[in-house]
Amino acid sequence: MSVSACFATSAYCLFSHGSNSPENSEAEGSSETSMPPQHPHMYSQTFTCRRPQSISRLRLRTVCGLHSKILAGRTITDPDLLESSNVDWLKTVKGSSEVLLRPQTTEEVSQILSYCNSRNLAVNPQGGNTGLVGGSVPVYDEIILSTSLMNNILTFDNISGILTCQAGCVLENLSLYLEERDYIMPLDLGAKGSCQIGGNVATNAGGLRLLRYGSLHGTVLGLEVVLADGRVLDCLATLRKDNTGYDLKQLFIGSEGTLGVITAVSILCPRKPKSTNVVFLGCETFEELLKTFQLCRGMLGEILSAFEFLDSECMRLLNTHLKLPNPITDCPFYIVIETSGSDQDHDSQKLDNFLEKAMASTLVTDGTVATEQSKIKDLWSMRERVTEALTHDGFTYKYDISLPVERIYQLVTDMRQHLGDRAKSVVGYGHVGDGNLHLNITSPAKDPALLAAIEPFVYEWTASCQGSISAEHGLGLKKRNYIYYSKPSQAVALMGNIKAMLDPKGILNPYKTLPDDLK
Amino acid sequence: MSVSACFATSAYCLFSHGSNSPENSEAEGSSETSMPPQHPHMYSQTFTCRRPQSISRLRLRTVCGLHSKILAGRTITDPDLLESSNVDWLKTVKGSSEVLLRPQTTEEVSQILSYCNSRNLAVNPQGGNTGLVGGSVPVYDEIILSTSLMNNILTFDNISGILTCQAGCVLENLSLYLEERDYIMPLDLGAKGSCQIGGNVATNAGGLRLLRYGSLHGTVLGLEVVLADGRVLDCLATLRKDNTGYDLKQLFIGSEGTLGVITAVSILCPRKPKSTNVVFLGCETFEELLKTFQLCRGMLGEILSAFEFLDSECMRLLNTHLKLPNPITDCPFYIVIETSGSDQDHDSQKLDNFLEKAMASTLVTDGTVATEQSKIKDLWSMRERVTEALTHDGFTYKYDISLPVERIYQLVTDMRQHLGDRAKSVVGYGHVGDGNLHLNITSPAKDPALLAAIEPFVYEWTASCQGSISAEHGLGLKKRNYIYYSKPSQAVALMGNIKAMLDPKGILNPYKTLPDDLK
Repeated sequence: MSVSACFATSAYCLFSHGSNSPENSEAEGSSETSMPPQHPHMYSQTFTCRRPQSISRLRLRTVCGLHSKILAGRTITDPDLLESSNVDWLKTVKGSSEVLLRPQTTEEVSQILSYCNSRNLAVNPQGGNTGLVGGSVPVYDEIILSTSLMNNILTFDNISGILTCQAGCVLENLSLYLEERDYIMPLDLGAKGSCQIGGNVATNAGGLRLLRYGSLHGTVLGLEVVLADGRVLDCLATLRKDNTGYDLKQLFIGSEGTLGVITAVSILCPRKPKSTNVVFLGCETFEELLKTFQLCRGMLGEILSAFEFLDSECMRLLNTHLKLPNPITDCPFYIVIETSGSDQDHDSQKLDNFLEKAMASTLVTDGTVATEQSKIKDLWSMRERVTEALTHDGFTYKYDISLPVERIYQLVTDMRQHLGDRAKSVVGYGHVGDGNLHLNITSPAKDPALLAAIEPFVYEWTASCQGSISAEHGLGLKKRNYIYYSKPSQAVALMGNIKAMLDPKGILNPYKTLPDDLK
Repeated sequence: MSVSACFATSAYCLFSHGSNSPENSEAEGSSETSMPPQHPHMYSQTFTCRRPQSISRLRLRTVCGLHSKILAGRTITDPDLLESSNVDWLKTVKGSSEVLLRPQTTEEVSQILSYCNSRNLAVNPQGGNTGLVGGSVPVYDEIILSTSLMNNILTFDNISGILTCQAGCVLENLSLYLEERDYIMPLDLGAKGSCQIGGNVATNAGGLRLLRYGSLHGTVLGLEVVLADGRVLDCLATLRKDNTGYDLKQLFIGSEGTLGVITAVSILCPRKPKSTNVVFLGCETFEELLKTFQLCRGMLGEILSAFEFLDSECMRLLNTHLKLPNPITDCPFYIVIETSGSDQDHDSQKLDNFLEKAMASTLVTDGTVATEQSKIKDLWSMRERVTEALTHDGFTYKYDISLPVERIYQLVTDMRQHLGDRAKSVVGYGHVGDGNLHLNITSPAKDPALLAAIEPFVYEWTASCQGSISAEHGLGLKKRNYIYYSKPSQAVALMGNIKAMLDPKGILNPYKTLPDDLK
């Protein structure tokens, strides 16, 4: 159960050889060391390790013994209870961890990591386990460190709007807490009912409000992080401005639990808008959709809080699998626009002016407006529930691409043409305002031939436009070896140096984020 | 002229012993290795090194010979021309560099650093040299690497509003370029006519628009950086979202040129507001000023773009030294509020409603509104020219403090009481919206006794409120040893590890940002 003892020479060999299970060389995928990378779904199920009972049980008892003392009643070893923590939300990756630890305090996280680091035991930090790239579950038998019980709000300053809380707070709970106090969280995403703020920060979650409130690199003001060896790094400032030395917290935002375990977050929250409107519009072409976006930015200005799109294929899946009716007439493209402002009259007037112009110029062909909460929710679900509809359509190959905004739909069209009838559905939706396309391709079942047609085509296409092969989902287990399509080797090498500096034994979330070929 | 050869054991010893001049142990300040730190102004003038002519000239010729080849006509050795680059804007720190290099391309910067690194020659990267903490000038005889000639705009995307440019572009020039294209820079500051975007990013400049558009950690989308050894790190993405690995560019934002030389920047620019209003108000107490801020945030909402303040002492200096008349009746506190929006009628109506309520509730006692560009500029200069007025009042001790917003003026009051008649003026102004106070204390001349009364009092006071001893100015040379008042030693040690990783020989902007006692 020991991470192989190569750390004295290079931490990075851990990423191709090490795990809590020394037998991982039997697992498919571990021999993957060179570019171009193989497809991610080969990992599905195959990383489950087979470990000689004699060795593992002995070591497991040691671990459980200690952690039962530290975490009385919060050390889970029951395989049934462990099942949901070993499998990702998409059910495409399965680990075989035999221990789940549920600390309640930073001190407990520190004790756990200190213990694990000294014994070379790999750890998989886990929040709400809603990630889409296999970053939130163990690959072999890593110890799962869940932040679920670290769910206390620590402070909220009603004047500045700065919230500090433990990492395990569920995003939706924070939103409800803030809304009662006339504030909102600066981020919102479909998984809000399960995802945790620590995981949001660790994966630099984007979501639906990024267009308005910016990324977590700007809104997160402070972090408390436990480093691999158990040291607690206190950068939990609650200040909007602080230029005293390097901004260390930034390193951990988006590092997917590979550099440290985030235990607390302070974040700047915007005032709750007094007026919210949502519009659902139809467009004949993507070019007209883009022109609508430009018009909208000019006319709605500071009250624009989201500009999202879905194509007619998404609508078909929503109709078919979730029985959600199209709220307007059928069109090739649909737009969801949200405004948030401080004056209902002004906002309505701006929106009316915009809609009048958009209709008059025939940029949009049909539309409906919602100002009531229930109808707003209904319109939003047309966009938010596409992911759910896809899960009913078959095995889904998911891509989360950033591109110059004028190119984003061309990838969907090109992919459709490229795949022909080999795919069941090829759908595109996403955040137009951020240049972020969610490209999803389904097939009746897992289909290696289809995957071979999709990849590396999708990555090469993206790289040719200087796009990002992971806009907001991260790299996790599935996408780690494709990093070179979006980052130069010089940058990847520096990431390796940072990992080696902060986690020299490579115990934190191994096999994630960084590519296998990194030395 | 060689950095002392201790890099094989620890990069950090360079920060207490090394420089291009091995005789620096004669210089005052270099023995400063333990907490509590000594006062920063002891460094003024005294870091000028005295170097045996025979050694320096020989080495200087070598340097000049090479760089004349690389940078024909752009290697400055004339002492008169070097003078302005050796002295900071406040004229409190003076170096004695004999070489100023003015590269035009990233490749040239790479060649320079590669050359200097291989020969252990220290380098002082310099932008507009408008810093206030002695970070932008050499301490001894570091080679000055100026980015002034790297002033090309590379691309601007009119749809996304993403600008890429070389590091030496002057902020005001970028603003003018963007305004012609219906966009603005997300930051604005008093030094805009001289400061360069590379320096802005390297120092994580805050300024007047941070309240609305957030910090550079959020708006900077990409950086190109030349590392200490000359390697070029290309992270010059132009994407709003990119979660492929660690966000390396964040490391360089605010690192004050100690980790790499920023050569190009890509930045997200907001649309140019269609309507701008500025209000200048008077308040009787700071409590009423804070209540006005709360009222303002609620009623102006998304169009609020600045909420700044100055006290009556600032007004006295503006009247006395710059002959700027008070635009309203005399008050203890003055507020500058700016709104920026997309609809003049809506904005005026929101502003009128707010002013009506503020006057009716007697939160403010007098005020004037500007909608025309010239009057807007006049009102803004009441806030922007305080720094200039201070330079005429005498020797100025400057502090740039972040605090919970309800505490910011208490520090001014306490300092006034603490100093009694030892100070000539004790003034407070700053960014209420960001909890950022600029506390300035003047005396007829440099006064060590006064300084001893100010420090560590100001730092201890700030630390007791978990504030930051440098909100936006950075640490540079002057404040580096006070870092522990705002950062735990664990964090500072990690900063040292990062420095050692990226600049193992310590050639980049030595004696800056990190404290002397770092091992």
